[in-house]
Amino acid sequence: MAPTSVPELGRRAQAASRILATASGAVKDTALRLGADLLEQHTADILEANGHDVDGAASLGATATEIDRLRLSDARIGAMADGLRQVAALADPVGAVVDGSVRPNGLSVQRVRVPLGVIGIIYENRPNVTSDAAGLCLKAGNATMLRGSSSALASNIAVVACLRQAAGKAGLPEDVVVLVEDTGRPAAVEFMRLEGVIDCLIPRGGASLLATVKQEATVPCIIDGDGNCHVYVDAAADLDMALAIVVNAKTQRPGVCNAAESLLVHRAVADAFLPRAARALEGVELVGDDRARALVPGMTVASDEDFATEFLALTLSVAVVDGLDEAIDHIARYGSGHSEAIVTTDLAAADRFCREVDAGAVVVNASTRFVDGAELGLGAEVGISTQKLHARGPMGLEALTCTKYVVRGDGQVRG
Amino acid sequence: MAPTSVPELGRRAQAASRILATASGAVKDTALRLGADLLEQHTADILEANGHDVDGAASLGATATEIDRLRLSDARIGAMADGLRQVAALADPVGAVVDGSVRPNGLSVQRVRVPLGVIGIIYENRPNVTSDAAGLCLKAGNATMLRGSSSALASNIAVVACLRQAAGKAGLPEDVVVLVEDTGRPAAVEFMRLEGVIDCLIPRGGASLLATVKQEATVPCIIDGDGNCHVYVDAAADLDMALAIVVNAKTQRPGVCNAAESLLVHRAVADAFLPRAARALEGVELVGDDRARALVPGMTVASDEDFATEFLALTLSVAVVDGLDEAIDHIARYGSGHSEAIVTTDLAAADRFCREVDAGAVVVNASTRFVDGAELGLGAEVGISTQKLHARGPMGLEALTCTKYVVRGDGQVRG
Repeated sequence: MAPTSVPELGRRAQAASRILATASGAVKDTALRLGADLLEQHTADILEANGHDVDGAASLGATATEIDRLRLSDARIGAMADGLRQVAALADPVGAVVDGSVRPNGLSVQRVRVPLGVIGIIYENRPNVTSDAAGLCLKAGNATMLRGSSSALASNIAVVACLRQAAGKAGLPEDVVVLVEDTGRPAAVEFMRLEGVIDCLIPRGGASLLATVKQEATVPCIIDGDGNCHVYVDAAADLDMALAIVVNAKTQRPGVCNAAESLLVHRAVADAFLPRAARALEGVELVGDDRARALVPGMTVASDEDFATEFLALTLSVAVVDGLDEAIDHIARYGSGHSEAIVTTDLAAADRFCREVDAGAVVVNASTRFVDGAELGLGAEVGISTQKLHARGPMGLEALTCTKYVVRGDGQVRG
Repeated sequence: MAPTSVPELGRRAQAASRILATASGAVKDTALRLGADLLEQHTADILEANGHDVDGAASLGATATEIDRLRLSDARIGAMADGLRQVAALADPVGAVVDGSVRPNGLSVQRVRVPLGVIGIIYENRPNVTSDAAGLCLKAGNATMLRGSSSALASNIAVVACLRQAAGKAGLPEDVVVLVEDTGRPAAVEFMRLEGVIDCLIPRGGASLLATVKQEATVPCIIDGDGNCHVYVDAAADLDMALAIVVNAKTQRPGVCNAAESLLVHRAVADAFLPRAARALEGVELVGDDRARALVPGMTVASDEDFATEFLALTLSVAVVDGLDEAIDHIARYGSGHSEAIVTTDLAAADRFCREVDAGAVVVNASTRFVDGAELGLGAEVGISTQKLHARGPMGLEALTCTKYVVRGDGQVRG
């Protein structure tokens, strides 16, 4: 049987979204908890489906990393279920009154938080994104249209079946979660252009997926972009603290977007700091400008492109700067607007850095690795936006909502 | 001399935006008030330039409406100056702390309101948009790149000269306001694709401009879209109130987006209401469904397309519905998500309408004409967004900002 067409799935999701939008928090939380239970109950089925996916990917020559991202286990399915339960435990963002007033003519005006409607998620081969994303969208009152990769199709079908069944048991339409099973490129492009149906498209994946979305999508998008994050060690830095922060930001998990990719050091402390940092960063490939290289034997030369690169690996670009101004200019030139840190004991330098650096998050005296929804107290994270419109930095449930003006009068007309 | 290229103007605006972003409210307000003074002082020059534009447009066969939009006068320039002074008097949105907390590990987290950066405005032949838009953007800390129509070029150059001079006198870079003087289409498309420079593009104009922006723009946009607004007269409506609201919403200013385009009447009151409404709406062309036509002799038949049309004229589509559900479904099918009103004394009906109708603004017992930034208390209006991401409904200064996480620690690293 041919998979259901993208427009038809869109119609179903949109119809379901209208019902979900006004569902109570209790009903939504029941659906999430039932979804968690069903994932655990169907672990064997999900693992079987996942096994087919893994075998298929391996036979097509997938890399070990790709296979690792694709592979589920009892523990990973347990984590997916726990994730849904944690989302259920968060406060419902829908219905919150953002602000309001009574106008001189007696009109009552409120701005109320409401769901977006239908959220499209296009993602790569991690089947856990299926439940993570759908759970967050559902909590915020949105129907979810999922489009995963062909390599994870059987896994995604199995996971979505649990979520749909849970929604139905909770009294919601099953179509609050729909999966695009046609994994061809034309269907993906059709999906990205479902204007009037998809209220917000969130791509979750690497650079090539993001580039395709930017090129092809006509529906509104939130881009979870690159993190070319800097740590600037100021003249007035506590160098022990700076060392700990640089090592943590670079090496604690180098493959993620909030890891540091570039180290900027004030020339006044470069002598004292850089050789120590190089030793502490053993195993990290350092590429630097001339002043940095003069202090660290064996450091290779950094090109302009290196300074602009999100390595996502144990590589760090290094530059010595004349001061705060040059650091801020360097970040303005090369940064991706994700997370930028300063290490300093100088209050004025910290304040200027926070004010003048244009990024989703600016960090004083802490690792860039804290720029993450859970660490910043959002409870759950949909991604980290590097765009400025709608949502910026770590996105929680609020990013999956919009607002509506509710205006109440007693017969007012305009003069 | 060839006009400065679009990318070069973008570079200048972006450099200026970095300085403007951290300017104090006092400096920005000084620039706005000086701009108002200069517009008034240079009224003769502006009117002379505008005269050339009007003559040119007339010789190219512009319609009377187009000429009216283009033509300035002492009074219109005075209104532009007053507009800048009113914006100066508003509270500065920049620096407001949206929310914040201290995490268990001692990290202090704040979400702070910051400017977007560079805002692009592409608009048609109203030269007053030049100062209105640039003034609002400047107040919110943003540099503005303006691209008006060729027909208004001389007027726009004259107005922008005042604003740039005012910025300079206030100690800001003149490039906080730049005008694209190349009014050809290739330059417009280049403008809409200035990725990495324009942080937000706001088109101000008619359907064809919006369509071009949707098709061509690759920078983030806020669409100030159609208003196919409905008034639903419920079974429990006060019919006198309903009559006043329908007449006001349709006829007080029919050419604007928050005017009503469609009237829905509950069948229980259709007999009593529709013939009265038809008399009160004398001069308005009514097009209706069969049930409406049976009650109003001479009403022509409304097509599906009529129900989907924003007439922006003295035309009103009319349908009789079986109840609230049908009214909500009709609005979901035909509405453009702008402003939707119900007239009712039934609390449950009002609440359901507010909850279930998906629009930028829902209105109970008042005219749709109130859905406007000034009327809802925003102080000034950049437009009315019919999209859901970033800003929805009337947009004030807040819509011209975004947020930044500011994270302060004392050496925290992630475990």
